[in-house]
Amino acid sequence: MITDLPLAANGPALPARFTESASARPNGATAGGALAWLADRRRAYTFEVARVPFDRLDDWAFDPETGDLGHRSGRFFTIGGLRVSTGEGWVRQWDQPIIHQPEIGVLGFLVKEIDGLLHVLMQAKMEPGNANVVQLSPTVQATRSNQRRVHRGSGVRHLEYFTDPQRARVLVDSLQSEQGSWFLGKRNRNIVVETTEDVPEHDDYRWLTIGEIQELLRLDDTVNMDARTVLACLPFARPTGAPPTGAHSTFRAALRRSMDPGEGSRHTMGEVLSWFTDATVRHEVNARPVPLNEVKGWVRTPEAISHEEGRYFSVVGARVTAGSREVGSWTQPLLAPHGMGLTALLVRNIGGVLHVLLHARPEGGHPHGVELAPTVQCTPDNYLEWPKEARPRFLDYVERVPGDRVRFDAVQSEEGGRFQWARSRYTVIDAEDDVPVAESEDYRWLTLHQVGRLLRHSRYLNVQARSLIACLHSLW
Amino acid sequence: MITDLPLAANGPALPARFTESASARPNGATAGGALAWLADRRRAYTFEVARVPFDRLDDWAFDPETGDLGHRSGRFFTIGGLRVSTGEGWVRQWDQPIIHQPEIGVLGFLVKEIDGLLHVLMQAKMEPGNANVVQLSPTVQATRSNQRRVHRGSGVRHLEYFTDPQRARVLVDSLQSEQGSWFLGKRNRNIVVETTEDVPEHDDYRWLTIGEIQELLRLDDTVNMDARTVLACLPFARPTGAPPTGAHSTFRAALRRSMDPGEGSRHTMGEVLSWFTDATVRHEVNARPVPLNEVKGWVRTPEAISHEEGRYFSVVGARVTAGSREVGSWTQPLLAPHGMGLTALLVRNIGGVLHVLLHARPEGGHPHGVELAPTVQCTPDNYLEWPKEARPRFLDYVERVPGDRVRFDAVQSEEGGRFQWARSRYTVIDAEDDVPVAESEDYRWLTLHQVGRLLRHSRYLNVQARSLIACLHSLW
Repeated sequence: MITDLPLAANGPALPARFTESASARPNGATAGGALAWLADRRRAYTFEVARVPFDRLDDWAFDPETGDLGHRSGRFFTIGGLRVSTGEGWVRQWDQPIIHQPEIGVLGFLVKEIDGLLHVLMQAKMEPGNANVVQLSPTVQATRSNQRRVHRGSGVRHLEYFTDPQRARVLVDSLQSEQGSWFLGKRNRNIVVETTEDVPEHDDYRWLTIGEIQELLRLDDTVNMDARTVLACLPFARPTGAPPTGAHSTFRAALRRSMDPGEGSRHTMGEVLSWFTDATVRHEVNARPVPLNEVKGWVRTPEAISHEEGRYFSVVGARVTAGSREVGSWTQPLLAPHGMGLTALLVRNIGGVLHVLLHARPEGGHPHGVELAPTVQCTPDNYLEWPKEARPRFLDYVERVPGDRVRFDAVQSEEGGRFQWARSRYTVIDAEDDVPVAESEDYRWLTLHQVGRLLRHSRYLNVQARSLIACLHSLW
Repeated sequence: MITDLPLAANGPALPARFTESASARPNGATAGGALAWLADRRRAYTFEVARVPFDRLDDWAFDPETGDLGHRSGRFFTIGGLRVSTGEGWVRQWDQPIIHQPEIGVLGFLVKEIDGLLHVLMQAKMEPGNANVVQLSPTVQATRSNQRRVHRGSGVRHLEYFTDPQRARVLVDSLQSEQGSWFLGKRNRNIVVETTEDVPEHDDYRWLTIGEIQELLRLDDTVNMDARTVLACLPFARPTGAPPTGAHSTFRAALRRSMDPGEGSRHTMGEVLSWFTDATVRHEVNARPVPLNEVKGWVRTPEAISHEEGRYFSVVGARVTAGSREVGSWTQPLLAPHGMGLTALLVRNIGGVLHVLLHARPEGGHPHGVELAPTVQCTPDNYLEWPKEARPRFLDYVERVPGDRVRFDAVQSEEGGRFQWARSRYTVIDAEDDVPVAESEDYRWLTLHQVGRLLRHSRYLNVQARSLIACLHSLW
């Protein structure tokens, strides 16, 4: 018997709608408008963030048995230890403090068609660890604890659009990781929903086109990490219309072709997936949680937990004092990295199609070990006193590359709710023939279209790579 | 600058080649030939498997501190404890023994074109827990420890085709899970490689078409779990040629359309992925390893570790005595389930396209909590004394469905290297209008083509669902 029930139609061409919104680049005045709004929000919420010794943290304490640093309620997050061993690399075994926060957070973009163009409701959000204090953030950025509070009535603004299917339609929805060196198995739901309702206005929120957000992305410390990862998950169609002209027009034409599934790629998708499987199997990452007081090589003082050689990061206490009554003040631990990070994506034209060089990189906090990282991801200061062979591949190249190869260059902040001034230089470099097409074992050239296919699923691109993909999409 | 380097061509239509091999169904003689060969191998390797008390296991012992049961070398696997809590279900918190085997194994099919048809080199392999002792297995079925031994020279036969890219080309390659109720985070690389070399013959190996393997799959306890999961990962194109005739021709026509991406589906792929993300977020599975001697509700005697109500499974000791010198004899623990499992896939025709009803099911041993299970997956005996509301959905329907709705029905064994007589009835039922198209929260109707797309990635379909997909593919 054949039942005659309607099957799902392919919806309107969603990628084309995102591309159109991205092509709506602001003129100077519009970008200035968003910047002025962010500046206004910074003035409205004056904050002071001061380091305090651990014993001045309210409701946070070290567990007498394990030494783990946690909140008395058991909520929020805990700083525990991790013992990692890998079969490779300059350092093959180490202990480290790490943030345990097993719950899944929500990073959500609420979008709406305004004057025929998709707009995203972006938030000006203060976080204690942010450089610039207030950065451009997703509509909703909530931990599960936040979401629960909502059900008791005092809530996260706009969350209802993400939980009630009657209010908005889901366009994008996947779980993605955070920093595998600092977080143990942290995942967030990256979700984009579209509404047709009238959404109440609020001073902290503003409708922006994707193009306007991309313009702000070029500025230092302006678009936060949570917004960048959701941006990276948006599907884009190859832009139509006139070919690019002006500066870097050949690069931009290859970039546009890279978004097109009909163009070629160095590897088939099957080869890419097999390479990823192989890298996961080859890199044996053995990571297990240990009590913080068993972590070796780290020293705890009343003010900080730090590596005995001063490398990597410290865990510190912070007191946030708010100038306005609305937000209140609080204390919390923060992870404070030492030195500025360097996060670089090498790209090159292969057969007229731009390819990005991704690195299959094991990190202790990823439950599956390996994710795809940018070509270079490190804190260069950590290698200052180490021999040449300990230096990450392509680091020397990136540090010495002439400026005319640089297509994107901005300092971005990582998550300001957990990290204090965790800043990295994010750069996209057109390597042209400097870097051969033939790859070594842990590196592969992928097209942007292939990256987009991976981004529909969890676990492929790490958060730094996602940030750089968002940056690359600002360059069409 | 445009460099003019060749891009990857789409290879020959691999799915069509697998479909062609599957369409090469054996006549009675051929199926008989493979069966006679399996029977011959059973005679060649006579084995006796006897239960022994734990203190008679050579080199296996309970750790004095944790109570975990492990091998003195630290290799193979360990039986430890797991403490699981979920926010739902009849039983919301429990402890259980579980197998810890963190290494990634290889399940490999070596394929070769013979007389214009793809053939798979299948192995007649003995495993101590197998019903039928010897079952049809992949070419290679190796733990990482096995693989390492190879590098020291005494090895797993044919492994070189899977490790040396010069010897064979990778066709399929993904990591897939094992039983989330019995294994903690176990994954295997499911890999298919094609060679053009002459492969030396061996009595334990035989080239079979996919159709011949599928024919054997209809028999009880004949094709092992490891072979079934690799079979499920093969990509198939919609069969061409004359439409099916004879029994169930409407069902079979809908099944063929279900393999075609050009036919409709109840949900878009985006909706399927969003539903899976949502289910992962909704089902809070909190599972953490605990020492085996802290596991509550289980009793250890000299002969077995069992649940105090006799449910679920026992851990026992086994001594394997081989009749031939080649294999030797050994002892090991086995997990022995209580009662026959029931693993059922409901399918139905929606708009002329067959859809399968998958269940987003949390299991404690899956590192991400939820995977997609068959419509029903349980051991009915476990529910005998429990109230009606504790029974799994659709269990009553499956137990009472008239025989003319059953399209596939065979008893299959789970992995015989770890489980003793772990047998389940695997059944595919055409539910027609008995089950509505409208789904509840944790169930979705998917087409076979959509299932195939998910199977290119880790973590979507659990091992029972993969087995049933392999069975369904035998019904075109």
